Amino acid sequence: MPNKISKVFYGTLIHSLSLANLEILQNTLLGVDISGKIAFLEKNVLDEITLNHIISQWEFPEQEVIRLSKRQFLMPGFIDTHTHASQYPNAGTVYPIVVNNLLRSGTTTAVYFTTIHLESSKYLARLVKEKGQRGFIGKVNMDCNSPENYIESLDNSVKSTEEFIKYVLNLEKDEGRENGSRLVYPIITPRFAITCTSQLMDSLGLLAKKYNMPIQSHLSENIGEINFISELFPHLPDYTTVYDHHGLLNEKTIMAHGIHLSSKELKLIKERNIGISHCPTSNFAICSGVCNVRQLLDEGIKVGLGTDLSGGYSKSILNAIRNANIASRVVFMASSKVDDKPLNKSFPHLTLPELTYLATMGGAELVNLDKIIGNFLIGKEFDALLIDPDACQSPLDIFDDLEDIERIFEKFIFLGDERNLKSVYVKGKKVSGTDLESMNLREKELLKNLSKLNGGNCHLCNPNS
Amino acid sequence: MPNKISKVFYGTLIHSLSLANLEILQNTLLGVDISGKIAFLEKNVLDEITLNHIISQWEFPEQEVIRLSKRQFLMPGFIDTHTHASQYPNAGTVYPIVVNNLLRSGTTTAVYFTTIHLESSKYLARLVKEKGQRGFIGKVNMDCNSPENYIESLDNSVKSTEEFIKYVLNLEKDEGRENGSRLVYPIITPRFAITCTSQLMDSLGLLAKKYNMPIQSHLSENIGEINFISELFPHLPDYTTVYDHHGLLNEKTIMAHGIHLSSKELKLIKERNIGISHCPTSNFAICSGVCNVRQLLDEGIKVGLGTDLSGGYSKSILNAIRNANIASRVVFMASSKVDDKPLNKSFPHLTLPELTYLATMGGAELVNLDKIIGNFLIGKEFDALLIDPDACQSPLDIFDDLEDIERIFEKFIFLGDERNLKSVYVKGKKVSGTDLESMNLREKELLKNLSKLNGGNCHLCNPNS
Ligand SMILES: [Zn+2]
Ligand SMILES: [Zn+2]
Repeated sequence: MPNKISKVFYGTLIHSLSLANLEILQNTLLGVDISGKIAFLEKNVLDEITLNHIISQWEFPEQEVIRLSKRQFLMPGFIDTHTHASQYPNAGTVYPIVVNNLLRSGTTTAVYFTTIHLESSKYLARLVKEKGQRGFIGKVNMDCNSPENYIESLDNSVKSTEEFIKYVLNLEKDEGRENGSRLVYPIITPRFAITCTSQLMDSLGLLAKKYNMPIQSHLSENIGEINFISELFPHLPDYTTVYDHHGLLNEKTIMAHGIHLSSKELKLIKERNIGISHCPTSNFAICSGVCNVRQLLDEGIKVGLGTDLSGGYSKSILNAIRNANIASRVVFMASSKVDDKPLNKSFPHLTLPELTYLATMGGAELVNLDKIIGNFLIGKEFDALLIDPDACQSPLDIFDDLEDIERIFEKFIFLGDERNLKSVYVKGKKVSGTDLESMNLREKELLKNLSKLNGGNCHLCNPNS
Repeated sequence: MPNKISKVFYGTLIHSLSLANLEILQNTLLGVDISGKIAFLEKNVLDEITLNHIISQWEFPEQEVIRLSKRQFLMPGFIDTHTHASQYPNAGTVYPIVVNNLLRSGTTTAVYFTTIHLESSKYLARLVKEKGQRGFIGKVNMDCNSPENYIESLDNSVKSTEEFIKYVLNLEKDEGRENGSRLVYPIITPRFAITCTSQLMDSLGLLAKKYNMPIQSHLSENIGEINFISELFPHLPDYTTVYDHHGLLNEKTIMAHGIHLSSKELKLIKERNIGISHCPTSNFAICSGVCNVRQLLDEGIKVGLGTDLSGGYSKSILNAIRNANIASRVVFMASSKVDDKPLNKSFPHLTLPELTYLATMGGAELVNLDKIIGNFLIGKEFDALLIDPDACQSPLDIFDDLEDIERIFEKFIFLGDERNLKSVYVKGKKVSGTDLESMNLREKELLKNLSKLNGGNCHLCNPNS
């Protein structure tokens, strides 16, 4: 017997079926069951009789259907595949705000670097679970080439990492498979090969194997770093091989940046099936270089987007999309000789469907949840954004009532912000949104605290005043 | 006898004294007189006695001083030196929204391209004056190489341009010099050399001389255009010379883009003292190329920022600043050999003070109002933004009460938006802002119409409901 249906939406859905194929479904009914899974998706439901017929089969009351307005649409939640929760000042004390901010920005899944500290890393894992975000939490490892108070001993680093893994795995142990996937995962997190001894990396590789863990680190971000690596590991041919040599590259590995990779390294990355987290805002901000994402995709390498807070300026994946767009255009322009015609250029820039894919399905592939989230296939869990282009103080200008949905979607991607996120859902549950009426007490409390911290005082931020 | 004082602010001011010198003044008193001019600026006013002493000399009541909160600051209004009001659909019908949107985004001065149509161009000029923005309005000229219904005859083009100039000049003829500078100016606007015959350009050059008019057009945006120009004008050596040959280059000329200029062209531009409107958002969006602003500045060429609506995605000069930052970093990275150290690079990227200068003083130089606006020198007119980093739903995260003003300013520039613009002043008069309480009836009406157009319906957008 199928699960009971908890939510039904009726309206427009936009999601990626593949890198090139952005599907826009209008007049569509989508049902989510109590475990958070998409139970049904019925396209072209053009009249009330058909609509009622379908939902009555699922024993769902007509008056509870969430009917999207003409220009509203659902899209998959954003996946931030590289963010440093800890570079906010005072780590632990701001973690609630970090998670809340990311959710408000539509990031339904985040892959976090914390710090070397075990207890505050545990705290972030609890928070992410409590706030209903999907998260990969990485206690950072580093045992060399850093100031004394930033590093651990080899022994401590490995021991506390194993403790952290067990702790996070236990957070959801009582929730069986019938409730779908878990929300919070540990991820092994050597900061990067410069700050980790060979012994530490070996040990982390073994831990990854023992617990079948995902791994994240930084790779080939800038030239200075690459040169230092070749001094530190003169017996190994390149940066990527350093990680491979220590057992840190597998299909669950996420490497941030990957800007200056040789063709030999690209080949190894493809062979090991690791994913690259493209962080264009950070790359521009600190002049690391411009990543050639088109080349990575052409090689068949998995690519997702990352904010790299606080190397990047912005917590929003929308901003990462916009700067990924610019980065790809920079590569495109540089790849053409000045007098060439555009069609002759070697690396065509990324398209809107491709950018959308990177921010959703691409991220899902990096975290190995592409069978679970990333788009709206039946059976997947419902991580979604309800976008309202007409929201209060919306930054979008829509002048024409007849403007088509493709154009409105493009405007949202390039001009929208959290004001347009009416609701943010993770695993079928609403976890954030601008929709005050449907805001629960906890959410109101969070908003109030945020407002207090910002010194703000208004009826929107303080709904009780 | 000095003019009566109409407004006094007390708090933090941030403005550009030169390209490299961004001045931050705390505990400062700034007084604006009834003509909109800055009458006094007193730094380091540390106690109430001093404050009262100063304002009593100006016969200004203490209770009317606008006291900025700790993190609020005043900065000069943004100057958009290149925007197409007409590429919004249905030209005239959306002009009110265009002007209102630009004001809401902090653009106190805008240099507009309209269309070839005389009457709707006049309408925009009236609107800009009525809404209190400072504007340069250019009726577009084009008489060849375009679809039939987009062009005029040579004769019509020249005649209606002369009529337009007289019309705009007459709009403020009754307001004498004691009221400071005019708000609305005509500007001669050949679309670009491709769509204008030699005869038309000659005639426009003569009109510019006759009426001492500013001129705007497009220059060296992309390679295809440059090649076409050399086919159309085989007897002239380059694109810049084409305009020069037709009498269109003088110290009041603004050319948009200027991306692919030869050193000979740079020399001519410097000689004629024309200004370049850098439009990075548009340049990235349509892959025109990446303008080397550092090189222009090193040559002593005037540079301002433009949105190039709707070539660019965004109406906000903040967005132009962010993308000018990225563009300069792309040039910086490309100019360095891969193994060079940053210090060896040929074109250092733009700094925050430089970016701020381009958006304010740089723009003022382009429109030849650098003696009138652009910063807060005594005697200049008060075009300013009151920035509130703690505004309702502010996109800035300020975690630390002790965060210094430089850092808060940087956050506003890179993360802020119109939600942070508590008040927008032109010539001493508040013309826009989020501050609903002090909103006048006309502003409320505009907001309501905007909200209706967007289908929105909320207590913020509809303050009367
Ligand atoms: Zn990072
Ligand atoms: Zn333009």
